[in-house]
Amino acid sequence: MTRKVKIAVIGTGRMGSVHTRNIARLIPEADLVAVCDIRLEVAKTVANELGIRRVVQDYHELLADKDIEAILIATSTNTHAFIMKDVAAAGKHIFCEKPLALELDKIDEALEAVEKAGVKLQVGFNRRFDKSFQQVHQIVASGEIGRPCILRITNRDPDFPAMEFMRVSGGMFLDMTIHDFDMARFQVGEIEEVYATGGVLIEPELKEFGDIDTNVVTLKFANGAVGAIDNSRKAVYGYDQRLEVFCSNGTAMANNEAENTAVKGNPDGFHSAKPPYFFMQRYAPCYVDEVRQFIECVRDDKLTPTTGKDGRAAVVLGYAAGKSLRENRPVKVSEIG
Amino acid sequence: MTRKVKIAVIGTGRMGSVHTRNIARLIPEADLVAVCDIRLEVAKTVANELGIRRVVQDYHELLADKDIEAILIATSTNTHAFIMKDVAAAGKHIFCEKPLALELDKIDEALEAVEKAGVKLQVGFNRRFDKSFQQVHQIVASGEIGRPCILRITNRDPDFPAMEFMRVSGGMFLDMTIHDFDMARFQVGEIEEVYATGGVLIEPELKEFGDIDTNVVTLKFANGAVGAIDNSRKAVYGYDQRLEVFCSNGTAMANNEAENTAVKGNPDGFHSAKPPYFFMQRYAPCYVDEVRQFIECVRDDKLTPTTGKDGRAAVVLGYAAGKSLRENRPVKVSEIG
Amino acid sequence: MTRKVKIAVIGTGRMGSVHTRNIARLIPEADLVAVCDIRLEVAKTVANELGIRRVVQDYHELLADKDIEAILIATSTNTHAFIMKDVAAAGKHIFCEKPLALELDKIDEALEAVEKAGVKLQVGFNRRFDKSFQQVHQIVASGEIGRPCILRITNRDPDFPAMEFMRVSGGMFLDMTIHDFDMARFQVGEIEEVYATGGVLIEPELKEFGDIDTNVVTLKFANGAVGAIDNSRKAVYGYDQRLEVFCSNGTAMANNEAENTAVKGNPDGFHSAKPPYFFMQRYAPCYVDEVRQFIECVRDDKLTPTTGKDGRAAVVLGYAAGKSLRENRPVKVSEIG
Amino acid sequence: MTRKVKIAVIGTGRMGSVHTRNIARLIPEADLVAVCDIRLEVAKTVANELGIRRVVQDYHELLADKDIEAILIATSTNTHAFIMKDVAAAGKHIFCEKPLALELDKIDEALEAVEKAGVKLQVGFNRRFDKSFQQVHQIVASGEIGRPCILRITNRDPDFPAMEFMRVSGGMFLDMTIHDFDMARFQVGEIEEVYATGGVLIEPELKEFGDIDTNVVTLKFANGAVGAIDNSRKAVYGYDQRLEVFCSNGTAMANNEAENTAVKGNPDGFHSAKPPYFFMQRYAPCYVDEVRQFIECVRDDKLTPTTGKDGRAAVVLGYAAGKSLRENRPVKVSEIG
Repeated sequence: MTRKVKIAVIGTGRMGSVHTRNIARLIPEADLVAVCDIRLEVAKTVANELGIRRVVQDYHELLADKDIEAILIATSTNTHAFIMKDVAAAGKHIFCEKPLALELDKIDEALEAVEKAGVKLQVGFNRRFDKSFQQVHQIVASGEIGRPCILRITNRDPDFPAMEFMRVSGGMFLDMTIHDFDMARFQVGEIEEVYATGGVLIEPELKEFGDIDTNVVTLKFANGAVGAIDNSRKAVYGYDQRLEVFCSNGTAMANNEAENTAVKGNPDGFHSAKPPYFFMQRYAPCYVDEVRQFIECVRDDKLTPTTGKDGRAAVVLGYAAGKSLRENRPVKVSEIG
Repeated sequence: MTRKVKIAVIGTGRMGSVHTRNIARLIPEADLVAVCDIRLEVAKTVANELGIRRVVQDYHELLADKDIEAILIATSTNTHAFIMKDVAAAGKHIFCEKPLALELDKIDEALEAVEKAGVKLQVGFNRRFDKSFQQVHQIVASGEIGRPCILRITNRDPDFPAMEFMRVSGGMFLDMTIHDFDMARFQVGEIEEVYATGGVLIEPELKEFGDIDTNVVTLKFANGAVGAIDNSRKAVYGYDQRLEVFCSNGTAMANNEAENTAVKGNPDGFHSAKPPYFFMQRYAPCYVDEVRQFIECVRDDKLTPTTGKDGRAAVVLGYAAGKSLRENRPVKVSEIG
Repeated sequence: MTRKVKIAVIGTGRMGSVHTRNIARLIPEADLVAVCDIRLEVAKTVANELGIRRVVQDYHELLADKDIEAILIATSTNTHAFIMKDVAAAGKHIFCEKPLALELDKIDEALEAVEKAGVKLQVGFNRRFDKSFQQVHQIVASGEIGRPCILRITNRDPDFPAMEFMRVSGGMFLDMTIHDFDMARFQVGEIEEVYATGGVLIEPELKEFGDIDTNVVTLKFANGAVGAIDNSRKAVYGYDQRLEVFCSNGTAMANNEAENTAVKGNPDGFHSAKPPYFFMQRYAPCYVDEVRQFIECVRDDKLTPTTGKDGRAAVVLGYAAGKSLRENRPVKVSEIG
Repeated sequence: MTRKVKIAVIGTGRMGSVHTRNIARLIPEADLVAVCDIRLEVAKTVANELGIRRVVQDYHELLADKDIEAILIATSTNTHAFIMKDVAAAGKHIFCEKPLALELDKIDEALEAVEKAGVKLQVGFNRRFDKSFQQVHQIVASGEIGRPCILRITNRDPDFPAMEFMRVSGGMFLDMTIHDFDMARFQVGEIEEVYATGGVLIEPELKEFGDIDTNVVTLKFANGAVGAIDNSRKAVYGYDQRLEVFCSNGTAMANNEAENTAVKGNPDGFHSAKPPYFFMQRYAPCYVDEVRQFIECVRDDKLTPTTGKDGRAAVVLGYAAGKSLRENRPVKVSEIG
């Protein structure tokens, strides 16, 4: 029997508790030895539920534990970078939730630490692990439908998050479009230039802190392909997650999933179900798969499927889009750094 | 916090191990205290995987345990009835896989024992718990589309099971159509008469033991509605699970699920994915939900969603269909008993 | 340039005026030289609209006209047979609306006259010319998906015709299911036995004259395949026209068309359009194609795509279904004749 | 009976012959009195086919005919403007194919002549008459799904037109995207700014004359909405015509039509048909409806559904997009004029 990878989770809030449950229940390749949260009670609750014996408040305790090979970081964004540096320095492999940080210098410091320590780093771009997006990727990557020409991504949330979160989220491009930037790179390749347009069309309160709720971002790829991402914070018909890679010899699309396959016919026509509500439901299997693959990479010493470079690139693209929107001009990615 | 229901599983083969894993990992309302299999090693393997402490070879040991409130029976079909009698006599609630038995007298003895003991019984008609079939049921039951007129069920397996299993399966109607008989009763109501036609169109070997691989069964319901079930043992495009309840003021359908939502377009047209492969994948959430609801019924002293009567009725319909096929005439359910 | 076939139309009512317009406007291979209706004004109206010069009240006048090669008969059903006999005797090719007659002896007399005269006969089974049903036919006939095993046809009207028509229509099986019997023969082959069940579930008035509004008819084909047709006189969500030929190595389905492709998403889900309203819209191109092919068969001396044998077989099946319903038993086609 | 509008057609080439046939066969509200083409034989051919008595080579002959109320212009683009001026001066109403001209000053002269003469002008933006796009328009215009936020248009041809045509077509934005600019204005309203990106990704020969085969154009509307159009000259899976108007309280989409509704299932999955091949098939009913509505507007003295302003606006947007692509910056429509 293959050995289990000993892992601990730092941060057991919303995403952290999902990862914790997944590791404990659904990833037999991992041995979840400890959970940590500065809110000790939060960590204890999930630990009790799952029968995890070790619960700590200060993550440094975990770093000192020789047995722990890997750490999953799911704390709030502004702590990712310095925890990564500490974890890397302790020689442990890292799975870190996205975004790595909202500041590029922090990201660079963290990535430097990771590189210096020679540990593995995987960034939590869960959507890359979606079976439909993976299928599109395989069709395109196989070359059977020729070279990519046009990428289209529709990414719309079913509703606004809490306004307190919105104010510190980093804004539309760093909180929401960041997933699409990563998906675009996954499906088509490196992006050289972006042009962003959009505004506040639904929720006027956003104007107070300079955010937007609606946008279209145009992409130019290094391979000559072009793309368009559209985002909205509020699609009343549900979490809308579609993409298409149109190629020179065909096209590959991923359509929305549905809560169920029932269709009602009545004198008004045919009526079918909304998509699964929001990311926790829609991408539930991805949260399992991304961590399982991370565990396997640690165990078998393989390259992680998403890297620190990916984590950085998506943030750079977010900044480029923001600059483009403010200055109303296409912005080269190289202008950001 | 609500108390957990102490449950044990008898039979940890294919279905039993699924139930065991589901209870251990995904049904926190239950406390899985023991597993049992006459092949002790089989039970030990799953127990080790899940950290279950008690493993027994002889199910009578479990009956003596006062703490155990409920038993899930997932042994081979020919043992269901006598185990049910013993479990009922021990005063424990029962979840039993379908079919209850292949012989009506055995079923009747077991149901008598259940009734006498006053324990709860749920039969494993997993498909009733599918979200799409439930949605159809709710639309129809709400009355918003009028009274049921025509039921259509398409139930086709992706491939034949092993021939050794086929030979003892009870045949098409008791092994496969039995699910559709139950679904028909769930969606539309009691069935009064069936007419079955079909034959061996794909696998000649079936003729050796008098089974068929293809059939259409016509149904007459007590409420006047009519229906048609069609079955095949081998749909090369995958596990085909569809139904429609056509009503006087509308219709409600459940279409197939798909492995993914990707669509490829090329000069030959558009190409999309097959359904999820077979029942373990397609109905995975149902296996969790049916047992969770059973646990809740035990805990809260509620009626089980599927009953011994349901389990018996589906077997009676299977016999009626067999008689109809042999005699090439419509057979009243009352002829069987 | 190829010569035009000189044709006349007898009967310019509902279907006859459709054929007349189609020939005049959309079938340049034909030269529509005259129209005829015992209600002379009815014929004159459509002739004026289309600039047709010759209008007659008595169809015998057309028979005497040496120039006329072909006659399209679209009179009321009870006149089809004797007009066919006269037209055949006059040596003219015949396109006759379905059903040929409601009485088998009348059909046989007419077919005998046709055979004796050596003229061509095509029966107006328009649905065989539908592009989707043709596509299914081609897939199945090509053999690429193996041998047919199960046929499913759903044929539901959007609403009852006028009660006066219902009373003389020949009843469900001869007026409505007749199309499905022909489609079944087109897709899968000869039918040996039928079993019909159904009743009055929507419109009690039908009971006065012994008709039904809902049914399921089971079919056994000579090649061993089985089938189920379901019919309703009233599908409130629109004209429902679907079929599937499930085969040993795949399946071929034809789904409903839609009035348009628009989809609305709102908090209740997704909403799409009903099918085109009724046969005149749904099968509009078929009415053109069937007559165009007839014209080409006359011009090029080819076999007609639907024959007198087809017209007779569908009526026989209608009688077999009626007998089956009355006697509640499977009826062999050979019992009817 | 209402009077018929006397109309003549100038230009009986590809589009002109379609219009001519439609008027002659399918628009009884019109009386097609003459056709004209400088290639007299071309006009004679279609006139013979349809029984049109008057055929002229020089359109000025038609202008002198007092009986003619309306003229349909379907000549080559570079002649539209001066013919329009002459027709307007003759006091006849005009239906003119798009684009009105490739030069704005020519358009302005023609529109001035139209206005001065007080005649009606309709521009051939056929897609506005598509049933699905109309349904989207009605849903959006009704206000039931709130205010428009994001417009998405996918418009991809199945293959390149002949290279000789490409060289004089005006280029991607004036030949192809022009339809989308008009559709955008139809669905969402006036456009204030465009940003275009794209290139030659499929057919290198285009570089010789500075055209492109692939592009994404971003739109900013006066009402704050944003949009993205994507175009390709070659979609090997067929003529791809989709749009979506995402609104604050819902969304309205128009999906592709299909050549037929047949679906084949085999071990590779499910396979369905391509869209109808190209505009002549896909938009066939629109070509009838647009001219019928024009005829009705003339007869009943109503405003035309598409106007000279619409024809001019789409050309202006084409120029703005071209300028944007060349200068790689967003271009305000007001910069063009």
